[in-house]
Amino acid sequence: MSAALPGVALKRAVSRRKSIIMVIAKVWQLVRRPEGEPTVEDFLCVEEELPACSEGDSLLILEPDAPDWFSSSVSEIGSSLTVSNADDFTHVLVEAVALSIDPYMRYKARQIPLNTPMFGSQVAKVVESKNPELPVGTHLVHYEGWRTYTVLTSQHLKDKEHFGVMCLPEMGDLPKSLGIGILGMPGNTAYFGFLDICKPKAGDVVLVNGAAGAVGSAVVQIAKLKGCRVIAFAGSDEKVAWVKELGADHAFNYKTMNIGEALSKVAPKGVNIYFDNVGGKFTAQALPHMADYGVVSLCGAISTYNEEVDIGVPSLRSPFNEGTVIWKQLHIEGFLVFRWKARWMEGLKQLREWIEQGKLKYKETVFQGFEKMPSAFIGLFHGENTGKTVVVP
Amino acid sequence: MSAALPGVALKRAVSRRKSIIMVIAKVWQLVRRPEGEPTVEDFLCVEEELPACSEGDSLLILEPDAPDWFSSSVSEIGSSLTVSNADDFTHVLVEAVALSIDPYMRYKARQIPLNTPMFGSQVAKVVESKNPELPVGTHLVHYEGWRTYTVLTSQHLKDKEHFGVMCLPEMGDLPKSLGIGILGMPGNTAYFGFLDICKPKAGDVVLVNGAAGAVGSAVVQIAKLKGCRVIAFAGSDEKVAWVKELGADHAFNYKTMNIGEALSKVAPKGVNIYFDNVGGKFTAQALPHMADYGVVSLCGAISTYNEEVDIGVPSLRSPFNEGTVIWKQLHIEGFLVFRWKARWMEGLKQLREWIEQGKLKYKETVFQGFEKMPSAFIGLFHGENTGKTVVVP
Repeated sequence: MSAALPGVALKRAVSRRKSIIMVIAKVWQLVRRPEGEPTVEDFLCVEEELPACSEGDSLLILEPDAPDWFSSSVSEIGSSLTVSNADDFTHVLVEAVALSIDPYMRYKARQIPLNTPMFGSQVAKVVESKNPELPVGTHLVHYEGWRTYTVLTSQHLKDKEHFGVMCLPEMGDLPKSLGIGILGMPGNTAYFGFLDICKPKAGDVVLVNGAAGAVGSAVVQIAKLKGCRVIAFAGSDEKVAWVKELGADHAFNYKTMNIGEALSKVAPKGVNIYFDNVGGKFTAQALPHMADYGVVSLCGAISTYNEEVDIGVPSLRSPFNEGTVIWKQLHIEGFLVFRWKARWMEGLKQLREWIEQGKLKYKETVFQGFEKMPSAFIGLFHGENTGKTVVVP
Repeated sequence: MSAALPGVALKRAVSRRKSIIMVIAKVWQLVRRPEGEPTVEDFLCVEEELPACSEGDSLLILEPDAPDWFSSSVSEIGSSLTVSNADDFTHVLVEAVALSIDPYMRYKARQIPLNTPMFGSQVAKVVESKNPELPVGTHLVHYEGWRTYTVLTSQHLKDKEHFGVMCLPEMGDLPKSLGIGILGMPGNTAYFGFLDICKPKAGDVVLVNGAAGAVGSAVVQIAKLKGCRVIAFAGSDEKVAWVKELGADHAFNYKTMNIGEALSKVAPKGVNIYFDNVGGKFTAQALPHMADYGVVSLCGAISTYNEEVDIGVPSLRSPFNEGTVIWKQLHIEGFLVFRWKARWMEGLKQLREWIEQGKLKYKETVFQGFEKMPSAFIGLFHGENTGKTVVVP
C-alpha cells in the first residue's frame, strides 16, 4: 500500500504479464472516529495495490436470475481486501461507476475498524473477467466501500447476511447510477419500508420527513399512488417546492414552520402513518399528532446520527414517549431494507414500471470526483442533497 | 352532596317511598393534580346522594351473552353521576364488592377533571333492580370510579369507546374479585397483550418485568405454557421466589441485580420478546439485549408515571434509542386492552380453564376498607402489592 495521496486524481496501472493483472485502487479509509459531525480529517485517501491473480482460478459465480438472486454475502464489514493465496479467489475486477453516499454510513463510522476502507455501496463495471456470467462491461452493485477498483472474490459469497454482490436490474436507458438510488437500496427502502410496515390504505394520512431525500421523495409518491393524503417536510423552500411537484398534499419547510402547529392544522384527526427519516426533535414534535393505532416506520434518524448515544448503549433520550405510545396504541418498527432481500426484484420491478409510466420521479445530487467522497457525505448532515447523493469518480 | 368525611365508615341510607330509593354513596374524588408521586391529600372522600328514580323507567339492557357482549359504553371519564331527569335512566343500583387498584390510574389522575370521582373499575353487586336481566344479586364490572354505590343508567351504554358495564363471566367458586383481576382486565391484558402482540413461539426468550404484578405474573405463566424461556424481574426477594414458583426460568430482583449483566448472562443470544410493565431506566438497560427482530409489547411504564412528562407532550426522555430500534429491527407496540373487546370472552374463558387445570396461579393483595383506596394506590409505586391489588369496602 502506497503513501496517502488524498485529493490526487486517480491513477490506474494495469500491466499484463502472464495474465497477471495489477491495479492501483484509490481507497478512502476511516482513520479517526468522528466526534459529532464528521470532518474531512476523519478520512484518508490511500492507494492500494490489488492482489494479482493468475489464470485457472475457479470462477466466481453470481446468479442474477435466481429467485433469491441477491447473494447473502459480504466482505467483513470495513475490512480491506486481503486474499491469502490465489486459490481463494477468482478474478473479477470491477471499476466504480457511481459511489453511494448514504446517511446510514454515519453508523458504520462507529462500527468499522479504523484504518480500513469506509463502508459503502457502488455501481461498478466489470473491467477484467474470466467469468462467462460476468463479461467485461457488466454492471453490478457491491458493498466493498469507498474505493475505485475492487477485486471480487468467492469470499464475498460466504457466510454473511446483510450485504452482497448483485447484478444491476434491467434498466433500459436509465442511468446506471439508479442502481444505488431509486432502483436500488433507497428505492426498495421506500417501497418495502412504507408498503410492508405501514400497510397504507387509501385515505390514510401519511407524514414523511426528509421528503426531498432519496428515500423520502419516493415514499411521498408511493403514498400518493396508494391514495393516501401526504404531509411532507423538507429543509428548504426549494425542496418543499419539489416535494409539492411530486404530489404531496401539504409540504412544509421544517426550518421555518413549527412542526406541531403545521400538523394541528393539516392533520386535525391525527397522522395514521409516519415514515421517519429524521428522528429526534422532529419525532418528539410529531408523535403527539399520531392518530390512535398509528404506525411509525422508523427508517432513519439522521438528526441524531452525530450524537454521542450509540446503538446498543442504554440511553433515555429518544422521542418515543411511553405514555403516548401506550395510550395511542402506536406501532413503531425499525427496519433494515435487507430483511426483504428475498423480494428484492419485486420492489425494483415495480419501481421501474412506475418510473417508465411517469408516476415516480427522482433526483440525483451528483458530485464529480472520487476526492469528494467525504465532503459529499458531510453535506448530508446539512441537507445539501436533493434526492440521492452520488459520487462519480 | 354532603360535607367531606374522609376515612369515616360507610353509611348507607335507603328509604322506600313510592318506590323511590335513595342511597348515600361514599366517593373518592381527585381534588388535586398529583405532582410526582400521589399523596393522600390529592384525594377527598365525600358522600353523594344518588339520584332517585321512579317506577316505569325504561329498562337498562345489558347483553352478557351477545358475541360483542362487552358494551361499548362508559360514563364521561371521571364525571360524577348526574341525570337530568328520570326518563333518562333506569334504576339499577349496584354496590361495590371489590374495587380495583391499577397503575394506569396514575394517567387518569392527569386527565380527569378535578373534584370528580377518581377513575376506576369495580366488581359490584346489583342491590336494587327492575331489570329482569339483572336481578338483585347479579355481579357485574363497571368503570364508574372509586365509589361504594352506583346507579347505572342507559347513558352508560351510549357513544363511548373504551370502558363499559359488563357482567362477570361464569367463574364457579372462584372469588368474585377475580373479575377485576386474572378473570378481568389484567388477565386479558396479559393474554392478548402477550399472545396477540408478541406472537410467541416455543423457544423464544421472553423478558417480563413487574413479574409479580397482576399482569406480569400471568404473562410469566402464559409464556411458559407456550414453551418460551422466561426471564423475570421483580422488586423483592419474596416476589422473585414466587415468580420462580410460577415457572420463570430465571428471576431476578432488579433492586439488587444489574439488569444488563443479568441479561448478558442468561440471554447471551438476546431477548426475542420483552413484555414491559416498567419502562424508563429498566427498558434503557434491557433494550440493548434485544435480539434482532425482537418485539416489545409496551403494556405499561410504571417507573415513569410520576414524572412530569405527560401523554401527548413532546419529550426526549424515552429509552427507545432509535439506532437500536433501527439496527435491531425492533417492533415496539403500545396497547390498551380494550382493543380486544370483541374477543373479551375468548381470553377470560381460556384463563379460567388454565386456572381450573392448575396451570395459572394468581395472588391478590387485599386492602380492607374503602378508606384505604388512596393508600393502596400509592402503594403500587412502592411495589407493595404482589399480584392484583384490590380494596374490599
